[in-house]
Amino acid sequence: MDVRLALTGFGNVGQGVATLLAERSNDYHRRYGVRLLLTGVADRGGAAVDSKGLEPQVVLDTKRRTGTVSNSGQGSPNLAGTRFLEASGAQILLEAASTNFDDAEPGWSYAREGLAQGMDLVFASKGALVLHWGELMEQASSAGRIVKFSATVGAPLPELELAKYVLIGTDITGFEGILNATSNYILSAMTDGSTYAQAVRQAQDIGIAETDPTLDVDGWDAAAKAVIVANALLGADLRLSDVPRQGIRDVDRPALQEAELAGEAIKLIARATKTPNGVLARVGRERRPLADVLGSLRDDQMGVVLHAEPLGAVATTVQSTGGLATALTLLRDVVNLSRERGWAPILPK
Amino acid sequence: MDVRLALTGFGNVGQGVATLLAERSNDYHRRYGVRLLLTGVADRGGAAVDSKGLEPQVVLDTKRRTGTVSNSGQGSPNLAGTRFLEASGAQILLEAASTNFDDAEPGWSYAREGLAQGMDLVFASKGALVLHWGELMEQASSAGRIVKFSATVGAPLPELELAKYVLIGTDITGFEGILNATSNYILSAMTDGSTYAQAVRQAQDIGIAETDPTLDVDGWDAAAKAVIVANALLGADLRLSDVPRQGIRDVDRPALQEAELAGEAIKLIARATKTPNGVLARVGRERRPLADVLGSLRDDQMGVVLHAEPLGAVATTVQSTGGLATALTLLRDVVNLSRERGWAPILPK
Repeated sequence: MDVRLALTGFGNVGQGVATLLAERSNDYHRRYGVRLLLTGVADRGGAAVDSKGLEPQVVLDTKRRTGTVSNSGQGSPNLAGTRFLEASGAQILLEAASTNFDDAEPGWSYAREGLAQGMDLVFASKGALVLHWGELMEQASSAGRIVKFSATVGAPLPELELAKYVLIGTDITGFEGILNATSNYILSAMTDGSTYAQAVRQAQDIGIAETDPTLDVDGWDAAAKAVIVANALLGADLRLSDVPRQGIRDVDRPALQEAELAGEAIKLIARATKTPNGVLARVGRERRPLADVLGSLRDDQMGVVLHAEPLGAVATTVQSTGGLATALTLLRDVVNLSRERGWAPILPK
Repeated sequence: MDVRLALTGFGNVGQGVATLLAERSNDYHRRYGVRLLLTGVADRGGAAVDSKGLEPQVVLDTKRRTGTVSNSGQGSPNLAGTRFLEASGAQILLEAASTNFDDAEPGWSYAREGLAQGMDLVFASKGALVLHWGELMEQASSAGRIVKFSATVGAPLPELELAKYVLIGTDITGFEGILNATSNYILSAMTDGSTYAQAVRQAQDIGIAETDPTLDVDGWDAAAKAVIVANALLGADLRLSDVPRQGIRDVDRPALQEAELAGEAIKLIARATKTPNGVLARVGRERRPLADVLGSLRDDQMGVVLHAEPLGAVATTVQSTGGLATALTLLRDVVNLSRERGWAPILPK
């Protein structure tokens, strides 16, 4: 069946979604039984809307040419703010605006407006999840809406799906992970001899670090992911400010190289554990054996270890593939959500 | 809602299922919305049946005391063969008889009888899957039945769920894994100094090797798992005899220790790849870096790396916890199947 998607934010991730829809929507239709229609896109310059479905390639070309989707000539280009959501007629809002850890905007407003209009939510941005978790989940629950956010916890890492579909009958008591690919890349490059400044530049050159790498190298991104995973899997209600945080800006090369000679690696680890005093989360540097699943992760690899009693440790590692991985993960949430709603068949053909 | 389960085979795994149902069925009901009722159990000595639900603890005690479930005094203890399936009134057949790679019996007969009576199938045994894959799937499909078998591919490893719920939009082109915990344990112990005979005995002492370890140490078990994963995820239709197979019986300790000094480990790797000539699978010893996700697995750990384009490698590792992990995995299939059938809610409360 048709599933109409509104997309807020049209940077790297949003454009990745549009590219997948332009190139592979037939593939999704054939394999998963849903016809995914992009019916609204908003960026800082305005919005493009057509409740019958925009042409994703036209939106992409317009953005590239004019800097905003609002000139695409499809639908009603002059709708701004949240009004375009109503005009999109979407069932699902994909929130992919820039993450904002100060006030969670514009994602938080988009999310509430989406809920008010009866939309399910799929997040790529983290602000609303780490600043307003309890309120967001309560509003969604009382509106009978589904909220998914796999793309926010180290896409394409599957910790949320592991909890829902695999660790059935177990109790997840904690987790630890390398959840930020950029800082792992920088630590790796410095171990191989780069200075901190050189390593940051290399990460920028291959497109995994922002011009201002603060959120990655000071541990904000890893801490946000720890908050979201802890809230989702450990039943916590943490905010970003609850997580003690160490970054990698002051790590020195001799320490990295000394660790390596000892068969170990210094890694930026995000972790959370259920304790008698509630769920405690933190982000900090740890020295791990190279033969340990997290210690072995190099370059832009990420990984997470879930502690699930009585099974013990269940670990997953991935390579980060940037915006494409995040876009694929948003559409994976869309497909799973469509199955839960009965819009897509869950049984194989 | 109530979900009635028939269980064929009552060894380590079957008793694990009964123990979980005896101790945790309230937990499953509360968390997943299904009341799991064990309505039939068959072992070599006969069967116990009660379509309203057997008392799992009584069945366990009877087995322990008398060697067979048929003396439990619940239901109709004298039903033998496949007739008890009908009397059980079950919706799902859990096939957990001993794996038989010669003629797949008794599992293959139980499975066909279950399908004939309208039951969905959840396998712990591998025989029917590696000798009759195409026929089994065709019969199930034309009967509109679901077949699940996560417990056969290295429980609790999640490769089937990763493919269904996580790697959406990607193409799985191949995989490699350490899928047999016993042989990995033996290689690990020999690297640490044990002889082959000592290592086998240690594996038997901790309960992960059979009295006759042939299926594990000659690579049969790993090859069977490779067949099932290749058939399920790569669209192959392999049989066990299609897989070239090397075991660990003739590995020598100096080679293991020499590899370790070089920062590597000799591992028994099962792998399959899509090629222009179809899917090729094999099981053999490979020398892997210790800092590689498979090379780092020690003792009874298992792991699998899925190659999913365009994401790249997605790896998962687990600790084997023997019969308990397999029993948990059977019930995980039961819960996921119940969600697909609409017997259990898929949405969180």
